[in-house]
Formats: sequence, C-alpha cells, structure tokens
Amino acid sequence: MARNPTRGMNRRGLLAAAVTLPFLFGPALPFLKPKQAKAQTDPLPSWNDGANKRAITDFVARVTQHGGPDFVPPAERIATFDNDGTLWVEHPMYVQLAFALDRVKALAPMHPEWRDTQPFKAVLEGDMKTLGAAGDHGTAALVMATHAGMTTEEFQKIVTDWLATARDARFKRPYTELSYQPMIELLSYLRANGFKTFIVSGGGVEFMRPWTERVYGVPPEQVIGSSIKTRFQMRDGRPEIFRLPEMNFVDDKAGKPVGINEFIGRRPIAAFGNSDGDLEMLQWTTMSECVRLGLIVHHTDAEREYAYDRDTSFGRLDKALDAAPLNHWLVVDMKNDWKKIFAFE
Amino acid sequence: MARNPTRGMNRRGLLAAAVTLPFLFGPALPFLKPKQAKAQTDPLPSWNDGANKRAITDFVARVTQHGGPDFVPPAERIATFDNDGTLWVEHPMYVQLAFALDRVKALAPMHPEWRDTQPFKAVLEGDMKTLGAAGDHGTAALVMATHAGMTTEEFQKIVTDWLATARDARFKRPYTELSYQPMIELLSYLRANGFKTFIVSGGGVEFMRPWTERVYGVPPEQVIGSSIKTRFQMRDGRPEIFRLPEMNFVDDKAGKPVGINEFIGRRPIAAFGNSDGDLEMLQWTTMSECVRLGLIVHHTDAEREYAYDRDTSFGRLDKALDAAPLNHWLVVDMKNDWKKIFAFE
Repeated sequence: MARNPTRGMNRRGLLAAAVTLPFLFGPALPFLKPKQAKAQTDPLPSWNDGANKRAITDFVARVTQHGGPDFVPPAERIATFDNDGTLWVEHPMYVQLAFALDRVKALAPMHPEWRDTQPFKAVLEGDMKTLGAAGDHGTAALVMATHAGMTTEEFQKIVTDWLATARDARFKRPYTELSYQPMIELLSYLRANGFKTFIVSGGGVEFMRPWTERVYGVPPEQVIGSSIKTRFQMRDGRPEIFRLPEMNFVDDKAGKPVGINEFIGRRPIAAFGNSDGDLEMLQWTTMSECVRLGLIVHHTDAEREYAYDRDTSFGRLDKALDAAPLNHWLVVDMKNDWKKIFAFE
Repeated sequence: MARNPTRGMNRRGLLAAAVTLPFLFGPALPFLKPKQAKAQTDPLPSWNDGANKRAITDFVARVTQHGGPDFVPPAERIATFDNDGTLWVEHPMYVQLAFALDRVKALAPMHPEWRDTQPFKAVLEGDMKTLGAAGDHGTAALVMATHAGMTTEEFQKIVTDWLATARDARFKRPYTELSYQPMIELLSYLRANGFKTFIVSGGGVEFMRPWTERVYGVPPEQVIGSSIKTRFQMRDGRPEIFRLPEMNFVDDKAGKPVGINEFIGRRPIAAFGNSDGDLEMLQWTTMSECVRLGLIVHHTDAEREYAYDRDTSFGRLDKALDAAPLNHWLVVDMKNDWKKIFAFE
C-alpha cells in the first residue's frame, strides 16, 4: 500500500492525489500543473507569497487546530477590522466626508444662509483650504447638518442613493468598488475558519451598514462605528427613529476597545487596522499571553493606490507604525504584499 | 396516482405517510399513534396547545415559507427578547438588585461610612422600606458603588462567582435555574428556523453577558442592555477596560428601540417582553405592513411563580397590556399556556 498510494482510488481520488502529490506526476500530467492546483486552493490569491501571508495562515492554522496548544473555540474567534484605509480607500479624503460635501451642495438651495456661513461657504465655493482650517469643529458642523434631522430609514436611503451614483474622481468608480480585494479575501478566509468578523470604524455606523453586507459580507449587527444620538418617536401613528444633531459615541483611538467591549463583549483574537486610530484596538487585541494576530495595512503604493503614513490628514500612521515591531504586528506593504489591490484591476 | 397516494413509496415513505395521514391507517397501526409522532417533533413541548402556541408556530411557518407572500430572508429574521420577567424571574426583586445588595454587604467592611449613609445603611440593616423610598437616586448610588471601580474582567468574575453561590430565597435554587423553560424552547425553536436571537434588557449588559450563552444560547455579542461608561487604559503595561461610575445608556422603554437600532441596525420581526418597559420595542417591531410577532408574558401563576401586572415595582405591566389587543400582540397566560415554568419542576 505504501508503495502505491493511488491503489483503490477512483478517478476523483486520482485527480486529488495529482493535486496534492504533484511531484509524483510532474510533467506527465501537464494539465494539472502545481501552479494551477495551488490557485484553486489558495484562500488568499491576491496576496503575494511571503512572510506576511505565511504569518496569517500560520495564525489561523494554530487557533483552529483541535487539541493544539493554541486552539480557540469558534465562539471566541472574534476578528475586528477598521474600515477607512483598511478595507477601502480613504484618500484623498474619507468617503464619508465626500458624502457630506455632496450633501451640503444638494441641500444648499434649502439653506440660503450657508452662502455666508462657514464651513458651508467653503464647501459651496470648493475652498478646501478654508475647509481644512475649520478643523474638527467645522467637520462636526458639516456632519450634523447632513447626517441629522431625518429618520434612520430616510438616512439609509440617502446613503444608498448617493453610493449608487457617486464616483471617485481618480478611479471613476463607485466607492464600494474601491474596497481592497486582498482584505475581502482575508475576511472570507477568516469566516471560513469559524471567525466572526466585525467592522470597528471611526466612520459613522449608519453610513456603513447599508452596504457592508454586500461588499464585505459583514451584516449590520457586526458593524461598530461612531454614532449620533437618536430618539424613538411616533409620527402619524407610525414608529420611527429620528437622528439628532448630537454626538453619541466616537469609535476611534481609545474609543475602539471601549466600543468593542460595549458591542461585542468579548476581546478579539485578531485585529486589522492602518492608522493611529487603530493603535488601542491592536493593543487590546494582541497584548495577551495567548497567540493573537495584529496587522497594519501600510499604504506604500502611489501607483496603484496611494502612499502615505506619518504625514497625512486622513489615516495618519505614526505611533502605531513605531509600535508594530515591538508588538509583533504584521505590517503589510501594499506594494509588495498585494498582487492586486482592487478587484477591477 | 391520485387514487393511491402510497404507490411507489418505500417502507420509509409508508411510515411517513402513516404519520401524516393517520386517518388512512387509524387503529390498524397502533404503534404509530398521532400523539406519539407529534410529541417527538413538537419544538415547544412545555407550551400547552392553544391559540398562543398556534399563533407562534403559524408566524414562524409563514416567514420561513420559501416563495410565500410573507417570506423573510434568514438575515432579516431578528428576534429580540427582554430578560427580567420574560426569560427569568424578576420577583420579589430584579436579580441584579439582589446582586447589588449582596455586594454592598460584602464590601461594607471596606466602607465604614456606609453605616451612616443612605441608602447603604438601609441595605446593611435590611430596611427594605427605606431602601424602596430612596427611589431611582438610591438605586443609582447602589449600582455605582457595586458595579464600577474595577476592570471589566474583574466585574465578570464577581458576577460569575456570585451566581455560582447565590440562591433565590423561595426556590432555593441558583438564579440561572429560574429561567423559563417555555421561553428557552422558544429561543431554540426560532434559532432552528434561521432567526438570530438577541436579548434587549433594561438590566446591565455586563451583568448578563457572563451567563446568557450557557443559559439561553445567546452569545455576548447578541446581548444589549443598560451600561455604565468605561475607559480603556494601560496598567503596568497591560491593557484593560475600567468601569466608571457614570451612566452610559439606559436600555429601557424608548431606549429599547434606540438600542436595537444602535447595536443591531435592523428592525426586528419578532419581539418578546413582559412589562411597560417593552412597550416601545413591541411597537417598533410590530407596527409594520408586514407579518410581525409581538408577545407579552403575563405573570398569572402565583402558585408556580408569581402573579402581578399593573400594581408592582418590578415589571409593571399596564400600558402594554392595554396596547396588546389593539396591536394583535399575544398575551401569554403563564398559568394556562405553560405546562411547565421551570426545567426543575
């Protein structure tokens, strides 16, 4: 038996053996080249082979090995992903900011006073310098004017309609197509290995929920994000939830572990980010006695996407980049680690 | 064919026909009585047959019937359950209040000042009348003194240790055994039909999460409740989440639909409660054009459990009881609808 491992196999078994034991057949079966066989089973085909890809698959193998020292039961396989810059593009500005600017323009006819009020005036005049100088206070004013004052169902429709028509200026594509193919593969790979995948983003939770299931396979109840306050009310005998112009929760920096605890109630075993906004989430996830995975997406590819880290207003990566080697976090080099960035390439 | 429905069936098919068409065989096959066949498949064995049980199974049949007019895809089959008085006992007081009182006694040696400070003095002296008169303000003081000032991991251990040893005075049982068997069957039945079951309780979320998976099959990330604020911090190089003496979210009354929207981001299609604290959740769930299920557990069995509704401090059911017939919510009569209340009976 040992000398003839194919004895007793049917045709399907022979094909499987040809795939797993290609050295036995080699050139005799040119239609089953090892490369092809590998492409069929590689769960991360858009990732180049290398230390980072290997570290990911090694981690998954360890925590899913029944009886192994690092085994984690499926219920505890919680993985958290930042969104902007980790799962989709965040340059030249956060997509949600592009949405807010478009909404200001769309609503301007109903707000003649905006022509003389900052930061609305700057938005309407395309004066990005003044807008940038308005800082967090200015951004908050834009968010409240465009994200509050309607029901949750109305807001969901506004977001869905906008995403259906808005196009990124550089790629001329819907923003949802600017999601990173290697990360979508990673989400699927983790789920196929019993993980529950969550988004934990500084972005608005109700801006993400209408499309995360379709784009990332992450259902609304597994999306955690920043939020404004809401109020339950009856209007004309119908119940509704109304969005109020007041911050409720900022899911960024130290707010991320707080949000994870509040919404999930378990500590993740793997976390994925790309900026200093993810530092505390990575610390909370990985600073443990057990095997954990922390990963930072480093934007290094100006040609296919963008190149930035310490010096940017959107997705600044500075402290977390310094903390990565000390904490054994993987730093993914988009240019060298990813064969493909977008599905449409 | 129509005249002989059993033609072409194998033995197994014949047996199935005997079960589904008992009138054809009747006394000829006494070993396959309809009653036996039914008992084996009844997903709600602790529920007496009747209009309420039938309405529940009819609802589930309708929303799960592929191609039917009321079909709801599995991803949207969200069911929300109140906890106190709906899934477990809330008399003579909420279990969490019993926990807080025990904690005050346990912590009293470190707080000599409590001997002269209300409401702590009343707790230590067993003076329930004074304690009751202290109202919400007094309760809040007890909660902050016993639920804050430690990490989330420490609090989880305190709750787990307490539940392992504390016993209800009347039933002499651990509180987790005072969960309602018919409701546990209902949770399982819904999950078996593709529903995702959530707890939406006025109780503290971190008081529930340590045991809801074991007792109800509901994992921590599907438990929504009231919460106090927390802070992420590093202590001796280790990350932790520290519980602060300040309310964060009150998941009761109009807070329930707000919490459902914030944590789940979808509108439930079925909701289960027992008090006025669940009124808005029931409205938000059922006031829809589509087929929805609202259910109120009515405490009518003083012998096996407790009997109360409009006139009680814990689980007052008044407005929601009046609203039930107008909204076609089922009102479960515990005495007559439930064969068994607790598993240990």
